[in-house]
Amino acid sequence: MIGVAISEGFDILNLHGAAFAEHAPNLTMLRPEQVTDPGAVDFVVTFRPPADAFAAYPNLQAVVSAAAGVDAILSCPSLPDNVPVLRVEDQDQALQMAGFAAFHVLWHHRGMDQHLADQAAQHWNRPMFGRSPMERRVGVMGFGLMGRQVATQIAALGYPTASLSRRMPAPVVQGVTHFLDDDRAAFLARTDILINVLPLTEATRNIMNAELFAALPKGAAVINIGRGEHLDETALLAALETGQISGASLDAFVTEPLPQGHPFWVHPRVLVTPHTASAPDSRAVVLSIRDSLARVAAGTHTDDRQARGY
Amino acid sequence: MIGVAISEGFDILNLHGAAFAEHAPNLTMLRPEQVTDPGAVDFVVTFRPPADAFAAYPNLQAVVSAAAGVDAILSCPSLPDNVPVLRVEDQDQALQMAGFAAFHVLWHHRGMDQHLADQAAQHWNRPMFGRSPMERRVGVMGFGLMGRQVATQIAALGYPTASLSRRMPAPVVQGVTHFLDDDRAAFLARTDILINVLPLTEATRNIMNAELFAALPKGAAVINIGRGEHLDETALLAALETGQISGASLDAFVTEPLPQGHPFWVHPRVLVTPHTASAPDSRAVVLSIRDSLARVAAGTHTDDRQARGY
Ligand SMILES: NC(=O)c1ccc[n+]([C@@H]2O[C@H](COP(=O)([O-])OP(=O)(O)OC[C@H]3O[C@@H](n4cnc5c(N)ncnc54)[C@H](OP(=O)(O)O)[C@@H]3O)[C@@H](O)[C@H]2O)c1
Ligand SMILES: NC(=O)c1ccc[n+]([C@@H]2O[C@H](COP(=O)([O-])OP(=O)(O)OC[C@H]3O[C@@H](n4cnc5c(N)ncnc54)[C@H](OP(=O)(O)O)[C@@H]3O)[C@@H](O)[C@H]2O)c1
Repeated sequence: MIGVAISEGFDILNLHGAAFAEHAPNLTMLRPEQVTDPGAVDFVVTFRPPADAFAAYPNLQAVVSAAAGVDAILSCPSLPDNVPVLRVEDQDQALQMAGFAAFHVLWHHRGMDQHLADQAAQHWNRPMFGRSPMERRVGVMGFGLMGRQVATQIAALGYPTASLSRRMPAPVVQGVTHFLDDDRAAFLARTDILINVLPLTEATRNIMNAELFAALPKGAAVINIGRGEHLDETALLAALETGQISGASLDAFVTEPLPQGHPFWVHPRVLVTPHTASAPDSRAVVLSIRDSLARVAAGTHTDDRQARGY
Repeated sequence: MIGVAISEGFDILNLHGAAFAEHAPNLTMLRPEQVTDPGAVDFVVTFRPPADAFAAYPNLQAVVSAAAGVDAILSCPSLPDNVPVLRVEDQDQALQMAGFAAFHVLWHHRGMDQHLADQAAQHWNRPMFGRSPMERRVGVMGFGLMGRQVATQIAALGYPTASLSRRMPAPVVQGVTHFLDDDRAAFLARTDILINVLPLTEATRNIMNAELFAALPKGAAVINIGRGEHLDETALLAALETGQISGASLDAFVTEPLPQGHPFWVHPRVLVTPHTASAPDSRAVVLSIRDSLARVAAGTHTDDRQARGY
């Protein structure tokens, strides 16, 4: 099969070309400028497609995301309606998310920023209480490939943990209390540390807004490892100002790279990371794409739009 | 029963007095200066006993540690030979250790110090690779109450994990490869991030020394959540200098508080925390002491010296 790799801000073949050659030698991978016969192109691999990414190829059988998210693909104006959209599903990546989330739960619960400041001041400042994970209730918004693993691992560390999605997931995870989105207010009211791993959709855009912050207990912390567009940045800065939100760990931003001078960079209670919570490794990306294309050829694939209920 | 609380650097009754009153009202807890009849004292609760701590009390039935470690008690010259030494055993505390250890594994594996430096410089510096937990093999020295929980949780996060002790533990933990201490060289050779949760004994004092650092792969990281005396501080500074050790997280020190001007405070690749990895909460301390004393009265206790094979 013949595929075209095309994405903004990200050279897919530079990153994964060697893995394609090693793990999927039956796939011919081209850059757009290498295509001589657009009608022969079977699939596109992309992450952030430019607006006209798909327009040139009349015979696409699949569009494959080079990562876990498909939001940028689904909102691309040239995406054909009748072509299945598939994505990388990698359990190793879900474990990366879980470890990253655990780091930030500990960061907020155990006051690790204070320990760093104390070290800089050569100040031995031993807390007398507050180490038990029972002291912080964690809530995970989104319970798919990522959210399920995040909630499982945080609960295993002893934190009282709840999860949120629209439909009751099966199987549930032992030790994690699941809330349906209809019950979101109750989920938020019992959440001291909120982790967002929702996919970006019209229903979830701007979900972390002033109203949501007000529904959390005073002093709650927020960890965003979903998308920047999930977060109302101005509302977060205001909630940090009043102390309604005590701190935030942010890995994704509306504009990436986060622009110089953005208030998040310098905020003493915001931890900025460069969209690095997780990424599938090259081998996982290529194996997943190879398997997705095989399922498309066999007619046994599930379009990610339908799988996610968009 | 009548107990005396006595410890250096730590006012046990100030911290746990209310919990004693609430959860063990049958125990009369005194400070040494409140004792009128030393012969009537049944037990001592302590953590760091002064040298003569036990000398005044001829009829002790038990010595109980107010924490998980008993090293300072066992090395106290006035400790009577025939009195059982017991300690707090608290699964919640083991989970605190696991969360704290997970934080530092992520810190070293995911270069979190670099992310903090990048934030200070407003520099978006997204790593291209290296997020998979498969990239770092973790080794846990000590597989008791603490080590078992630490190894279990780190393995669950996807890190290839091994553990070390003198005797084969039962049951083993799925996904954790156990090494006996006779095989320590092999354990160290496969360990990129070493976590120490050994108890302090004559056999483990100074165990993290130049020889041990040399037996680790070049660039390994070290996390000490055991005791300061497990670590040869000079050898660690030298190994950091050559790059044999890439970084260290240290929670316990030979001298606590860590003295002003100590090189660890200012070392760019050493993270200092103030002996805060874990602590049992007051309720757990008191319930554990109450149950230990009941077992001593019933003759069903195990002396911690024997339990640990000292
Ligand atoms: N920062 C990073 O490095 C990074 C890396 C990877 C992924 N991500 C982000 O993480 C997201 C989630 O990934 P995933 O693989 O876990 O997705 P997924 O498997 O599709 O799971 C999505 C979850 O969200 C729930 N959900 C969807 N819409 C919802 C709504 N309106 N209200 C409540 N729950 C809703 C879904 O359940 P229902 O359908 O039942 O509601 C499901 O539980 C990705 O889309 C991406 O944005 C970030
Ligand atoms: N930083 C903190 O905040 C903090 C808090 C709590 C505890 N701690 C430290 O953590 C230590 C461990 O606590 P724990 O409750 O897990 O102790 P534990 O239940 O007694 O377990 C000790 C473990 O170490 C192994 N071990 C003992 N001597 C050894 C040796 N020479 N070589 C190899 N393995 C050896 C034991 O197995 P074998 O007997 O089979 O060898 C056992 O697996 C405490 O003693 C304390 O120093 C630190």
